[in-house]
Amino acid sequence: MSGTLEFYFDFSSPYGYLAAQRIDALGEELGRDVIWRPFLLGAVFKETGSQPLLGIPLKGDYARLDLERSARRMGVPMRFPDSFPFASVAACRAFYALEENDPAMAVTLAVALYEAAFGRGEDINKPENVLSIAGTLGLDLADRLGLPEIKERLRHEVEGALNKGVFGSPFFIVEGESFWGHDRMDDLADWVRQGGW
Amino acid sequence: MSGTLEFYFDFSSPYGYLAAQRIDALGEELGRDVIWRPFLLGAVFKETGSQPLLGIPLKGDYARLDLERSARRMGVPMRFPDSFPFASVAACRAFYALEENDPAMAVTLAVALYEAAFGRGEDINKPENVLSIAGTLGLDLADRLGLPEIKERLRHEVEGALNKGVFGSPFFIVEGESFWGHDRMDDLADWVRQGGW
Repeated sequence: MSGTLEFYFDFSSPYGYLAAQRIDALGEELGRDVIWRPFLLGAVFKETGSQPLLGIPLKGDYARLDLERSARRMGVPMRFPDSFPFASVAACRAFYALEENDPAMAVTLAVALYEAAFGRGEDINKPENVLSIAGTLGLDLADRLGLPEIKERLRHEVEGALNKGVFGSPFFIVEGESFWGHDRMDDLADWVRQGGW
Repeated sequence: MSGTLEFYFDFSSPYGYLAAQRIDALGEELGRDVIWRPFLLGAVFKETGSQPLLGIPLKGDYARLDLERSARRMGVPMRFPDSFPFASVAACRAFYALEENDPAMAVTLAVALYEAAFGRGEDINKPENVLSIAGTLGLDLADRLGLPEIKERLRHEVEGALNKGVFGSPFFIVEGESFWGHDRMDDLADWVRQGGW
């Protein structure tokens, strides 16, 4: 491995869900360790004055169609949860509660959470939903989810994302170069293969 | 030709400039007549609550870098005019003043205006700038730019774009299917070739 590929996403981001379906394969293809970094887009939107995508007039309607056709093209299911957009604090905390000791399992959990939310349209906003999905993987996170050090870790990650200029989801950084959007993953790959432009 | 490919753009949009560099070649490749449709993004932003891209914290910095690397990759010059974003009413009116009688020349003028603005960083916000660039093509539009029917035509086009759900620049519609963004031109091409997904 000659470096890392940072993958920033919010669990409430449907384009993040699509990116999560192929990011590990892309990292392997490019010879990069993928570092999964869930964060809270809401904190970033306060900086940028943005709002949740699907609620924006015109743009929201387009995004819904584009998400559905992008999912069809990739052959992955796409279904929106009833409560959308949703708070992803519990999902993020669960990820970081696992990540320090078992990063591979944290990624497995992230994929399971995303597939619940956008593959089957389940609500993952509440801690009990997240704990229940963790339970299907044999994980018991009930004691860790509310720990002060986990809350602090998430705050630290959100701040770190902001400091790196991350303003959307999904967002990728490789060799200091930023790429925003699920639709830029091929560009990112070309950029790495060609050694930049 | 089995149909049209509508190309919506604002003359003040640097991603529209990049799209304009390859849209006609793409149309030819796909066997579609490209219909150039300049409009005023400001009118749309009132509907969507959006703001000019490069002024948005974090996102604006990224967009500038992304525009420059995208232009490098395409091998086209990219230089921002001093006054940016700028009003593109005069440029739009000049386009529509020509388009009814000579659509090919209107496209030639659009390309010339874009290359002045983002290839050489010239101001094209004022009517006299636009007339001067038209002059280099042997066109005298001085009498037509302010005609009530030209103003009305532009209003009509902006309204038409809004009614079709156009919310950004560049924006493409082919067979009723919408694609937003310079970075979706390859997707659009795949969509047409594969008969949709």
